Amino acid sequence: MPRIELSSIEPKEIVAGYAAKFIHTPNMTFSYLHVKAGASLPEHSHPHEQVAHVLEGEFQLTVDGEPFRLEPGTIFVIPPDIKHSGLAITDCKLLDVFNPVREDYKKLSESK
Amino acid sequence: MPRIELSSIEPKEIVAGYAAKFIHTPNMTFSYLHVKAGASLPEHSHPHEQVAHVLEGEFQLTVDGEPFRLEPGTIFVIPPDIKHSGLAITDCKLLDVFNPVREDYKKLSESK
Repeated sequence: MPRIELSSIEPKEIVAGYAAKFIHTPNMTFSYLHVKAGASLPEHSHPHEQVAHVLEGEFQLTVDGEPFRLEPGTIFVIPPDIKHSGLAITDCKLLDVFNPVREDYKKLSESK
Repeated sequence: MPRIELSSIEPKEIVAGYAAKFIHTPNMTFSYLHVKAGASLPEHSHPHEQVAHVLEGEFQLTVDGEPFRLEPGTIFVIPPDIKHSGLAITDCKLLDVFNPVREDYKKLSESK
């Protein structure tokens, strides 16, 4: 059965300072991120729904030009195709959930 | 924009000892659970994909008759239509993510 230990997954650096461990199910991608304070994620968009969680630390998420400070207990639902970017205010742990699967991240997961 | 504070969501007791706060996006349901030690979730199944996380505590998930002890850092992917049940070994915080939306939970979310 598909029991997965996060400790067994090799992290991939998707952007400088953003180390991601991925789980892909048939319909969703889960990205568990460790982010270094001050690391920024350039503005981008994708056709996937994204639900962003800050599990530890403080993170600034800018969505459609508007900045939001996120901490544990705040969830942000980013609709498809909406431009967003990020900045870690402190060291952070994040969880992003996507539907459908992020095929780009799936290829990255399978790369050496 | 859809910024959601978990503290603003009223929990619903889905089963004795299982208090759930729900977020529903167009394609996914997120269930944030506080579970009391010893509380059990009867065996059931549903056509949705489910990805189970234990955020705090220890939880026994039984899938297709096989028991698994889950702690933070372990993720379990429950395929559609597979029977599963649960038992909180300690007080727990859980996060279950479903695709597609759990319409039953959505109705419950909207109930008084």
